[in-house]
Amino acid sequence: MAKQKKQPRPKAAAPRGFRDYFGPEVTRRRSMLETIAKIYHLYGFDALETSAVETVEALGKFLPDVDRPNEGVFAWQEGEAEGKGDWLALRYDMTAPLARVAAQYRNELPSPYRRYAMGPVWRNEKPGPGRFRQFYQCDADTVGSASMAADAEICAMLSDVLEAVGIARGDYVVRVNNRKVLNGVMEVAGIGGPEHEAERGIVLRAIDKLDRLGEDGVRALLGEGRRDESGDFTKGAGLDNLQTEKIMGFVGTQFRVDNNLAQQASDLEAANQNETANNLHSARYSASSKMAHHWADYAEYRQIWNRAVIRHLDELVEGNDEGWKGVRELEEIFDHLVAQGKDGSFLIDPSVVRGLGYYTGPVYEAELTFEVTDEDGRPRQFGSVAGGGRYDDLVKRFTGQEVPATGVSIGVDRLLAALSGRNLDARPADGPVVVTIMDRQRTGEYQTMVRRLRDAGIRAELYLGNPRNFGNQLKYADRRGAPIAVIQGEDEAARGVVQIKDLKLGAELAASLSHEEWRDQPAQFECPEADMVEEIRKRLQ
Amino acid sequence: MAKQKKQPRPKAAAPRGFRDYFGPEVTRRRSMLETIAKIYHLYGFDALETSAVETVEALGKFLPDVDRPNEGVFAWQEGEAEGKGDWLALRYDMTAPLARVAAQYRNELPSPYRRYAMGPVWRNEKPGPGRFRQFYQCDADTVGSASMAADAEICAMLSDVLEAVGIARGDYVVRVNNRKVLNGVMEVAGIGGPEHEAERGIVLRAIDKLDRLGEDGVRALLGEGRRDESGDFTKGAGLDNLQTEKIMGFVGTQFRVDNNLAQQASDLEAANQNETANNLHSARYSASSKMAHHWADYAEYRQIWNRAVIRHLDELVEGNDEGWKGVRELEEIFDHLVAQGKDGSFLIDPSVVRGLGYYTGPVYEAELTFEVTDEDGRPRQFGSVAGGGRYDDLVKRFTGQEVPATGVSIGVDRLLAALSGRNLDARPADGPVVVTIMDRQRTGEYQTMVRRLRDAGIRAELYLGNPRNFGNQLKYADRRGAPIAVIQGEDEAARGVVQIKDLKLGAELAASLSHEEWRDQPAQFECPEADMVEEIRKRLQ
Repeated sequence: MAKQKKQPRPKAAAPRGFRDYFGPEVTRRRSMLETIAKIYHLYGFDALETSAVETVEALGKFLPDVDRPNEGVFAWQEGEAEGKGDWLALRYDMTAPLARVAAQYRNELPSPYRRYAMGPVWRNEKPGPGRFRQFYQCDADTVGSASMAADAEICAMLSDVLEAVGIARGDYVVRVNNRKVLNGVMEVAGIGGPEHEAERGIVLRAIDKLDRLGEDGVRALLGEGRRDESGDFTKGAGLDNLQTEKIMGFVGTQFRVDNNLAQQASDLEAANQNETANNLHSARYSASSKMAHHWADYAEYRQIWNRAVIRHLDELVEGNDEGWKGVRELEEIFDHLVAQGKDGSFLIDPSVVRGLGYYTGPVYEAELTFEVTDEDGRPRQFGSVAGGGRYDDLVKRFTGQEVPATGVSIGVDRLLAALSGRNLDARPADGPVVVTIMDRQRTGEYQTMVRRLRDAGIRAELYLGNPRNFGNQLKYADRRGAPIAVIQGEDEAARGVVQIKDLKLGAELAASLSHEEWRDQPAQFECPEADMVEEIRKRLQ
Repeated sequence: MAKQKKQPRPKAAAPRGFRDYFGPEVTRRRSMLETIAKIYHLYGFDALETSAVETVEALGKFLPDVDRPNEGVFAWQEGEAEGKGDWLALRYDMTAPLARVAAQYRNELPSPYRRYAMGPVWRNEKPGPGRFRQFYQCDADTVGSASMAADAEICAMLSDVLEAVGIARGDYVVRVNNRKVLNGVMEVAGIGGPEHEAERGIVLRAIDKLDRLGEDGVRALLGEGRRDESGDFTKGAGLDNLQTEKIMGFVGTQFRVDNNLAQQASDLEAANQNETANNLHSARYSASSKMAHHWADYAEYRQIWNRAVIRHLDELVEGNDEGWKGVRELEEIFDHLVAQGKDGSFLIDPSVVRGLGYYTGPVYEAELTFEVTDEDGRPRQFGSVAGGGRYDDLVKRFTGQEVPATGVSIGVDRLLAALSGRNLDARPADGPVVVTIMDRQRTGEYQTMVRRLRDAGIRAELYLGNPRNFGNQLKYADRRGAPIAVIQGEDEAARGVVQIKDLKLGAELAASLSHEEWRDQPAQFECPEADMVEEIRKRLQ
């Protein structure tokens, strides 16, 4: 650009889909990250911070929206004088960079390598309300362990984290599934081979829509297809009835296990075994995500439920090796959780299908079960705040050698939103003491007052705007949420005193008293300048 | 890309110029950021976090290396289905995004607005040893105050921050200059108008090379030009002798003020006023950056020095309005620092030329004055770790309205490197207790031990690798820096005890004892399983 060229004014706006975070939003997030890091650390995980930028080839292509431009990432090509260089991109998660690090430093890192990482990730997605293109993740992963104990540890830690940041036990559930079980079911249904990849894709997407379409909608998508309310037709997987019912047996696990338990309970009632029957009813109830009771009451019933789910899955995959292996892995994770007394917050749930393409076995998802009020004032269940799983092939991409790995990613911004939605994040206001300027010539003296307050550890500011209009100074103090303003005019200076104006008390009095009472009780008093720090400290306590 | 296409393995490497940070490197940086944020907060600054991505037009072009491709930033164009979109880029500093925010939210933010921000920034520069393309900055700025009290506050805060992170008073100096003074000098030298922009550019670059080329080298660049050792010729600014000497009077301020004080001292000595003369000598010495003494001894001498520099500058800009204004601003900042008892760490230094293009008045730079050992084992002075200044026109770019602003940026990674270089960052090792697996069948029991340790707040891990080779488990514990390993075989389990192996003590004993003594004093003992947590806690203290 020519140097003197007159340019139009730039637009003062963050790019579409990006936002700014102010004051308490930033510090609340920081304190949540600290809390999570503390638990990760307690579990023996070490910090790792990779750069935001990776080569596109190292990141790989595992995002669900593969048909979008740039396949969901922000990418650019290095353009150097000596010719075009690598394609670079902003990381879209913390897992792909970890796989790169595990491969790059495989001779230096301990094995297994437990690491945690926190920071922003970027997705080149269409922004929407409450959906941003930069958001925080806080991950923990174990690389180099094939043991289901590693998955169980991650799940237990996830539950500890949720409770540490303020989600009560019973207000969340961690749902666990295993990709191998579904693969097994699809093999049993005869769509296992590489020639059926397209059908499997349709089946996966259909399952993911169970919540929205219900069993009949999913069934239609497994068969010929489905016409929605607008008249649009979505082509189905073209499965025959037998195949469809096999898959639906899996999709409808919740419903079928519930039915089975109800049937068993009714048989027990008929045989007058009411207590055992009631336990089965409690187990049914414990699997409902509407539950918001204390965990201790539910652990034993959830165990009944989870064991029943395992039996149901075993029937579905009978005779299929991969499916059988998947169910055993689920059972093993669950046993590990039971051994640690950590099973009460877990549900084995075949409807969990994580979107990312790299998962190979167990997948998990933490869901908040309480209702929050959304932007339009409507109550809704909050939903997923964390997810993860096992990705045994991700390091192999680089080295050719199998390196099993598993981990979880916590959506910190969503978790913060959940806590705000419940007002669980109330924090005392924390504005600074504002020292005003009555007499510009004496700025040095006012600054010394500020210095004394700061030296005493009291957050304090000198008013740095134009001091001419004193009203503006008090308005500024107000906007800053200042608890106290300090005022010293010529007269006070001569007498060696300051005026201390208690803005918080003033606001309370103004709200509760009549105008006359308020005038008689001004929340303002005089004190010797020497006592200022002590007087203010007392007021702030 | 076709789905089944066989791809070559991706390279397991961070992109050129980017690096990974492991364990203590991450936590040390985090704790430094916390320390800095605490002080910024005490001074009344509020947190702000903008996204890493801005529009190119909002960022503007203020980086020094304007002739590099992309002008020093990582940028790309939004490519959406509906046509090409905005050019986006990673922020190259925290100041340009702040200016955008100050403009965008000008009606909501308090004014003046004190904000701090911390996080990575990105520069598309040629990477070199120790020079990375992503690094951390921790900034504090005041937007909306024209008062030099704001600049003084930033400088005082910078000095507090350096001391809080562990730099001793006397081991750093904050150098302050003012762009207006140099502009004034250039006007006086007759190269003030817009038609002399090229000459002014050469002059600025020449001044920046004073350290390397010395006065004669700079003088050559101000005149016809300079041929370096390799024979390459750099064209000069073409100034005549009178002009050159005017500029050199400014460039050589340090030398000239030193000479003046020496002359005065010698006059005083001739008049037998030895004490006053000694003060002048101390003042000369106090301006040398080799000084590494206690600040309290030097404040008064530095004040003599700084006042002498102000007199010298006043002479240089005599009759020039902008220059005179610049010197007054310097004096005002200095007076504010004196009023707060914060002047001892400051030197007014006309050789400070900050590279960024947006500064309009005061500029400052914090320099560490101690020597560190570089990568090749050679001692060198550490140099600059922070810098900033006043940029009154940056918000105006967006709004057309003048919004004065000033701030500082701390190079957190450089500061960390400085502390490492001095071994000021020694921290106790912090590896987890490792519970080993002697008997795979009993993994659940081992896990319960880990759980008990974690519940007691003790960092602990279960060994999650293949447990077959027990030696590998102890090697793993070693690599993790584990202080203690817990071992329980069948025999111990039957007796309800565990073996506690004190690895730290073991290593110490192994280093200090003969092999026989060591065998007799194994740092391993048995204790009842019930006492395990308590025994380990004792050992860890």
